[in-house]
Parts: sequence; structure tokens; C-alpha cells
Amino acid sequence: MKPRTLWMQSTSCFICSSIPGPTLLKQMEIRRDMSELLSWSKQDGDPFKSTEQGDGGCSTNDFSIVHGKDLLPAENGEELTKHFLQELLNILLAYIRKSMNRSSKVLDFHHPHQLKEGLEGFSLELPEKPDNLEQLLVDCRNTLKYGVKTAHPRFLNQLSSGLDIIGLAGEWLTSTANTNIFTFEVAPVFILMEEVILKKMQSIIGWSEEEGDGIFCPGGTISNLYSILLARYHYFPKVKTEGMQALPRLALFTSTHSHYSIKKSAAVLGIGTDSVIAVNCDERGKMIPAELESSIMAAKAKGLVPFYVNATAGTTVYGAFDPFTDVANICEKWNLWMHIDAAWGGGLLLSKKHKIRLQGIEKASSVTWNPHKMMGAPLQCSTILVRQKGLLEACNKQCAEYLFQSDKPYDMSYDTGDKTIQCGRHVDVFKLWLMWKAKGSEGFESQINHCLENAEYLYYKLKSRQDFQLVFQSKPEHSNVCFWYMPSRVRNMSTGPDRDRELHSITPKIKAKLMEKGTAMIGYQPLGEKPNFFRCVFSNPATLKQDVDFLLDEIASLGSGL
Amino acid sequence: MKPRTLWMQSTSCFICSSIPGPTLLKQMEIRRDMSELLSWSKQDGDPFKSTEQGDGGCSTNDFSIVHGKDLLPAENGEELTKHFLQELLNILLAYIRKSMNRSSKVLDFHHPHQLKEGLEGFSLELPEKPDNLEQLLVDCRNTLKYGVKTAHPRFLNQLSSGLDIIGLAGEWLTSTANTNIFTFEVAPVFILMEEVILKKMQSIIGWSEEEGDGIFCPGGTISNLYSILLARYHYFPKVKTEGMQALPRLALFTSTHSHYSIKKSAAVLGIGTDSVIAVNCDERGKMIPAELESSIMAAKAKGLVPFYVNATAGTTVYGAFDPFTDVANICEKWNLWMHIDAAWGGGLLLSKKHKIRLQGIEKASSVTWNPHKMMGAPLQCSTILVRQKGLLEACNKQCAEYLFQSDKPYDMSYDTGDKTIQCGRHVDVFKLWLMWKAKGSEGFESQINHCLENAEYLYYKLKSRQDFQLVFQSKPEHSNVCFWYMPSRVRNMSTGPDRDRELHSITPKIKAKLMEKGTAMIGYQPLGEKPNFFRCVFSNPATLKQDVDFLLDEIASLGSGL
Repeated sequence: MKPRTLWMQSTSCFICSSIPGPTLLKQMEIRRDMSELLSWSKQDGDPFKSTEQGDGGCSTNDFSIVHGKDLLPAENGEELTKHFLQELLNILLAYIRKSMNRSSKVLDFHHPHQLKEGLEGFSLELPEKPDNLEQLLVDCRNTLKYGVKTAHPRFLNQLSSGLDIIGLAGEWLTSTANTNIFTFEVAPVFILMEEVILKKMQSIIGWSEEEGDGIFCPGGTISNLYSILLARYHYFPKVKTEGMQALPRLALFTSTHSHYSIKKSAAVLGIGTDSVIAVNCDERGKMIPAELESSIMAAKAKGLVPFYVNATAGTTVYGAFDPFTDVANICEKWNLWMHIDAAWGGGLLLSKKHKIRLQGIEKASSVTWNPHKMMGAPLQCSTILVRQKGLLEACNKQCAEYLFQSDKPYDMSYDTGDKTIQCGRHVDVFKLWLMWKAKGSEGFESQINHCLENAEYLYYKLKSRQDFQLVFQSKPEHSNVCFWYMPSRVRNMSTGPDRDRELHSITPKIKAKLMEKGTAMIGYQPLGEKPNFFRCVFSNPATLKQDVDFLLDEIASLGSGL
Repeated sequence: MKPRTLWMQSTSCFICSSIPGPTLLKQMEIRRDMSELLSWSKQDGDPFKSTEQGDGGCSTNDFSIVHGKDLLPAENGEELTKHFLQELLNILLAYIRKSMNRSSKVLDFHHPHQLKEGLEGFSLELPEKPDNLEQLLVDCRNTLKYGVKTAHPRFLNQLSSGLDIIGLAGEWLTSTANTNIFTFEVAPVFILMEEVILKKMQSIIGWSEEEGDGIFCPGGTISNLYSILLARYHYFPKVKTEGMQALPRLALFTSTHSHYSIKKSAAVLGIGTDSVIAVNCDERGKMIPAELESSIMAAKAKGLVPFYVNATAGTTVYGAFDPFTDVANICEKWNLWMHIDAAWGGGLLLSKKHKIRLQGIEKASSVTWNPHKMMGAPLQCSTILVRQKGLLEACNKQCAEYLFQSDKPYDMSYDTGDKTIQCGRHVDVFKLWLMWKAKGSEGFESQINHCLENAEYLYYKLKSRQDFQLVFQSKPEHSNVCFWYMPSRVRNMSTGPDRDRELHSITPKIKAKLMEKGTAMIGYQPLGEKPNFFRCVFSNPATLKQDVDFLLDEIASLGSGL
């Protein structure tokens, strides 16, 4: 073996993530590779080596006899740190490659008790004494092996999927910078990036330069929680000091198809879920404006005080868009806060072709928009955008003097942490900022159009097949497509409760078979009176029409005998 | 240049993060290196290359003419993906090395307007068209260059500091796996790791096998919010549906030295900050039990219903520990929920020497414990631990059928997502799990003992110097040490408002000078009637006694003329 091929050898020795545990052979390979790699870098000099440590450095050539404590900041820990992170990179590269390869499984399913019992030497238990670095690298491989490849083109299970390499690079840098985004003092660049991106998103929504505020949140449910919190404070500012007891009994409105986070937030905020009034939808899953208005009037008649309406841009299951202009008119008439939960649908604003679905969004008082869904940013990346400037801060600030001192040497309006309901906050902006640089707005547009083309393709495929049935007939507005698989036995039944009962039990059985086989993942659920049906969603640009074809054939193959 | 040294060359070409923008020379270097690296890997074969793509692969040798869209999942994107992430690794390694090097600055301070105006070609603006990969790598370097090196041994500004390489590896893997930890279905391994770690933490607290529940949260403020939410639901379960209006007027208690998250949470939860009753502390910052009891009685006399007490293990500024056994007795007597905010102090449970500070913690109804503080896990890593099993789920569940289906093929008690106030949740457990494997419990112990030794060293240093004065005289209980710097002019003043006014203005001036010079970062604040003083905290194992010496000399040097 020539020395110059050594780092490639080192790559290959970790590539085979199908080997579950450290075999003796494996350990010997690793030792040999590391030994040669390290002796080589010593002979030839290594520009990464610290000038401070002279000819010292890590003297080991074997990951099985070194430990975490030997890495930086340990004296002479630079070499080992470099080689350890290099090996980790090799493992991650191999995983990325495998995740995006259609011939790999999406998952290697094991039941909880199987994983807990320790599959082939993969023990989750926490030791008293340190494990060596070799064992840790094996643990990393196993963690990936028994996980779910959300970047796989046939992972269609969740609204967030895929793996954007630039976004990933952004996350790696973020975790290396390891700072909290609460003050300019400790996160100067990230704080400014938040400002730039939030302004961009506000301008895309259509708010003027004078309007607009916002913050990144740990997920869309928290973003939606903010919207209710802000609306309540806007109408009843004394709630901050005096609590809900100083307020009349409130009512808030959201459609039957909307996300459960509205109810969850009402419980957290002390409003209570009984105050959340579900507004009926049409067959397509869109809120019916007349139903909203009659619900408002009914609530008022009961002595409740309506203050907030949540409309949805891209419902979780059907991908429906509420009629925002109509809802906005009703909110204006009754002086209500209009929130739009565009966690899933917000991305469509970047597509000239599809942004029409969000017409009227500029009338909203607040918007939830999750770039980790349709825009493909790594998890988590969610925003709450607020039309009225200053409200976030007024609502949430507590002026902690150890953090938000008033005598700092810079413009303290950049200490944005007191706008939030958190204190320390993870930096979620950088990955999105870097992705935006990498794609430009037009790159997001073509990615989103591609996902919606997949949905349309699936829709027409389903229409053309006898063994599948659409849950509703109209063309998809977003990338959600809902359908049943109908084995011939069921196809021959007449519609009614008996057939529904069959469909309700067949759908999860097919899902379980798919998971066991590991060839694809897709979600399902009942909704209203509809028995369990599949919901396919596309947000991964890696997914192609061939994957759509594969999915339907696979479902049919696994389900035909049921 | 011999081919076998090429990847080291590639490392060196990105190492010099002091070069702020792409110069022509720099671009030429990068092109040459990449050209040689790629031609070499093509000649010699590359085990990472997909067998599917045959001899195809990335045909470019220049990052300036390739873009994000050329990376995976692009056809033939494997080579480029590997080389791009390799370059990123080189940048990050160089940054890590620099961060841990005492001869580097902690920060390179610029005002917000300077950064926004675009320092040396570093523009934050978002383009319509994509930037090339070379520009993105330059942006990554600049982002790090203008940030704050929180891993630097002289970054003493925040309760979270340092960079644990194993924890970092855990974060990189987590972001590569890119999944949500709400169901076993999409996060099987991570869900089980949460169970293992939460149980371990509960057993360290001293709860029995039959007791204990918990969840990872986005930061300690949200963990504390959970504690109040759970206490409220425990005593008044109807609050979930009926809201605060169905409840009597509540009162909760926390010390004057406690974290502001208690007030912030009371505002969010609709309880109102007026219901938060501040209990007086002794000179050392510890809650006075008799004051707690009289506050409870006074609240009851006013018709309020006390339900919750927050005691703190390691206050933010003084690092004080409340007297938990006394507080627990009072809580038992009055039937109150006892929460312990051990966000900062929880780590001391892992030290045989220091865990005595937390005596009585097993009596708590809930505990906040942030491994991202004293245990050195990367941000964020925070937990809420709850003694009563099942309460988290009962309080928060909404049973969304699209996510938490009741007919899944595995043990659905592992779908822990409905315990939380979020929906999607970032995986914060893996880095901690991997660190625990790497250090063992004993590794955390020695790391924590080391940090507290630094604090004791600083304490004795301050006592021995004329130009510094301790804010309180007793030895540190945690790693916080609070002090004033006294230039000779002030030393000669008699104590009183005039001297206080001087100290109040001198402290931030020294802090500003430190930031400008970039040699160290340390926090300051006023507290009660004490004028602005420095708070030094140690949580970075890289910090040594020489850094303590440096800090005091540097403050004295910058402050002597003030």
C-alpha cells in the first residue's frame, strides 16, 4: 500500500456501516490504518500541528487506547482531535451516501425492547468509566444504522425530509461556534443574520418596511403559541402582570383541519382548550368563512370575547389553504387578531407559480413559517413573524440585568433575547442563511416547484389506477396527496361502514409491512369520518417520479392479499 | 509537491482564518489544491465513489464554478459533496484550534453597523441568484472570524462555555440524522437514549425506580415553565380545558436571587407576574426559609392560593444554593409543589465532593437540570425532570391522530412527543449520551471538580489583592465568584453612595475595554443595592489557573487609570 492512498484507506475502513459491532478483524484494520496514517503525517509534517507543542502531539496510533480526555483541550490533543473528527466525517459521509441511495433501506426496523436489549454489542447504558474512542465511533455507526434515513428519496413520512448539504454544513458550523443567540455580545453575526432573514421573510409576505418583527422559535408549535400570546397581550396588556383572571372569558377560532398546536397552546397559556372553537371546513379541508362568522357570533352570544383566529396555509393532512382574504375581512370586521399558520405552506411564497395559494397573507397580524419544512432547512428552523413592531418585546421582556445590561458599549437594540419566551436560544438561523446564499431565492423556487410536481404526478397516477382511491377529488394545492389502497376484496364491497372498517385496518397493516421491509415510509391517519388513509407529502428534492411509481407498486404488492 | 501531501495542503489552504475575504491569490491557491486533490483521487481510485455512477462524478476542480445544486442529491454529486464537507471540516478544525489557543483573541469586536456595512466583502444580504461554493466557504470563515470564541479558555462570560469535542461530534451526527424526536417511528434510537439518560439523571437525584419522568427542553427557561405548568395541572387539572378563570387566584414563590424565567413563565402561562412573590435572601443569596413561610401566610391572608415554590441550586449571579430541606418541609406543610431550578447547579450532583450542596433535592416535585451548563454539553441540552410519573403526558397530550396513531405495530408508549408543549422537537440527547459514554460518570466528576477549583483559586487570589474586593465574603459554593475592581482613586473613597456610583460606572467600562481588546470576556451586573460588579464563572475545563491570573492582571491593567 502506498502512503499516499492512506487517508482513502481510512475512509474505506469506516464506510461499511452494515458491520454492526467491532469485530477483531475490524479493530485490527482500524489500528493498522491509523498507525500508518499517523506515522505518515509525522514523517511528512502536518500544517495543522500546533507550533506551540513542537514535536509532541498525540503519540498513539490506535483509537482503542485513547479517550475523550486525550482530545482538545488536552495538551497535545490537536493531532488526535483532527483524526477523530476526520473519522467521524468519514462515517457521516458514508451515511449520507447510503441515505440518498435508492438501493438502501429507509430503515432497519427493530422494536424498542430489541434495541434496549443491545443488538450485537450496541448498548445504550451509561458507564461509570470512559469508553475508548474506537467504541465511540462504533456507537456512532450503530446509532445511524438503527435510525431512520430521513434523507432517503422514499422517506415520505413527515413534512420535514431530505438533507440539504449546505444546510448541514451550516449546522456543523453552528454547533462548532456553540453560542447562545440572546445578546449581540456573544452572537454578533448570528443576531444580524436573524435580522436580515426575518426582514426578507416579512417583505416576501408583503409587509411594508415600517412593519414587521419576528424571532426564530424551537418549532412551529411554539411559533403558534407566540401568536396567541401576542394577540392576548395586544388586546389585554394587563394579562402580563395580572393574569387571565383580570380578563373576560376569551374565545379563539381555528378550523377542524388545523394543527393541534392551537389547542395545545391554549392549554399552556391558561386560556383552556374549551375556549378553542373549531370552525367547520369544506370537503377540501378549507375553513368555511360563513362558519367562522357564525361561530364568532355564537361565542359572543354566550358571553365569550373573541380575540383571535388561526387560518392555515397548508393543513397538515390535506395541505389545504384557508381563504385568507375572506378570513381577513371577518377579522377586520370583528376586530380580531388574524394569525396564519404557514408552517408548512409558507415556502410556496417563494414560487411564482404557487404563491397564489397564499393570497391575502399580508393582511395577517402574525405568521408562522417553518423553513425546516418546505424549504428543506435542517431541523429545527421555525419562525414567528409579527406585523406590529415592538409587540414581541413588550409582551415578553423582563429586563434581566445580568444579561441585558443597559450600559453596554454597543447598540443594545441588538440584544434580541428579551423578545422571546426563552432565555438561552439555539442558533437556528445560520443554516438557513447559508442555504439562501447557496440557492438564491430562485433555487428555493425550483426546489419547491419540483416537490409540487411530484404531488401532481402522484395525483394523476392515483386517478388512473383501479386499486387506489383519492380521499378527495380535487388537484393538490400543496404537496399533500391523500389516498386509500383498495385490495380487490374491498373494491368489490359497497361503500359504507363495513368497507370503511376494512380500510381503517388495512392502511396501518400496509404501513407496518413497509416499515418492516424498510423500502419506503409514508404517513397515515383517520380524519373526521374518513377511515385510516395514506398521506403522501413531498418536501425532499431528492424524491423523483420513479419513487412515486415505486411507492404505489410497493403498497399494491404488500396490500393486495389483505 | 508530492501527491501524498495533498490533503494536508488542502487543510492548510483554509487554515488561515485571519484572511477575511477571497483574494485572487487565495482563489488561485484553492483552485490549484483542489485540482491536484481531485485529479489524484481520480487516478488512484476512491472508495467513497458510488459504484452506481461509474466513472462519472464531479468533473470540476474549482469551487468557484460549482454550486449547492451540484452537491448530493444531484446525480454524480458524491465527489463534490465529499470535498466540500472536507473543506468545511478543515475550516472548523482550524477554528477549534484557534479557539483553544491562548494567544488568539476571544473576539474581534465590531459594532452592529460595521458588520452590516459588510466588512471586507462579508455581506449578509440574501441574493436572488446562487453564490458559488467558494464564496460559501469564505462566508463560513468570516462568520467564525467575527463571532465570539466561546471555547476560549478566557471566555468566562456565560454559564455555558467551552467546546467538548465528543459533544460536538454528537451534534454533527445529530444534524446529519436530521430527524424529529416525537415518535419512536422516526427516532427509535434517540427516543431510547432519552429514556436511558433521563432515568440516570432521576436516579442521581435520588428518586426511586417507581418514580420519575422527564423530557429534554429547548433551554432552562422552558424547563422552568414546564414545572409551573405541571404544578398548576397537578392541583387544578381542569385548567387544561377551562383555563385560569376556573381557578382561584394563585401565588407562587421564588427568591429574589432566582432566575427571571419564573416571572417570564408566569406571564406566558396566564398566571401573571403579580402572582410571583419574591422571597428575601440572606447576604449569600440563599432563600431565607422563615421569609418563605411568612410570604406564604401573607399570600393566604390576601386570599391567594399558594401552589408552587421554586428553589434554586446555583443562582445565576452568586451561585447560591437554597436550603432545600427547609424549603421542602415548608412545601410539605403547606401542600405546595417544590421545584428546584438546578439548571446551573445540577452538575454538582456528579461530584462526590460537591453534591452536598444539593442535599434534599430528592424531595423536589420537579427539577430543571441543564447539561449544557456545568456538564459542558453543546447548546442546547436542558431537561425537566418530574417525580410523578404520567403527569407530563396527562398535562400536555392532545392525541393528534396524524402523528400519535393508536394502531401502530410497536409499543406506542415510546411515542413520547405528546408529553411536550412542542410538536417537532430537536434531538438534544445524543451529544450528551455520547459524552457520557466518553467520560463515564467519573469524567464529569473530575471536570466539575476542576471548574470549582478554579473558582476557589480565584477567590483566594481576590482576597489577597488590595485592588479587588469580593462582593460577599464566604467561599464559593459553585464556580461563581463576584467582585469589584477598585482603582486606587476609588479605594481611597469611603464606602457609600459616591463610591458605589464610581464602581457602577467603572465595571462596564472595563468590560468594554476587555471586549475591544478581545483578551477575555467576563459578565457583570448590579444586584439589589450592589453597584455593577463582575461575575466570573467557570464551566470550561480548558480554563486553568494561569487564565485566572491573566484575568485579574488584565482587569487591573485596563482599569487602573479609571
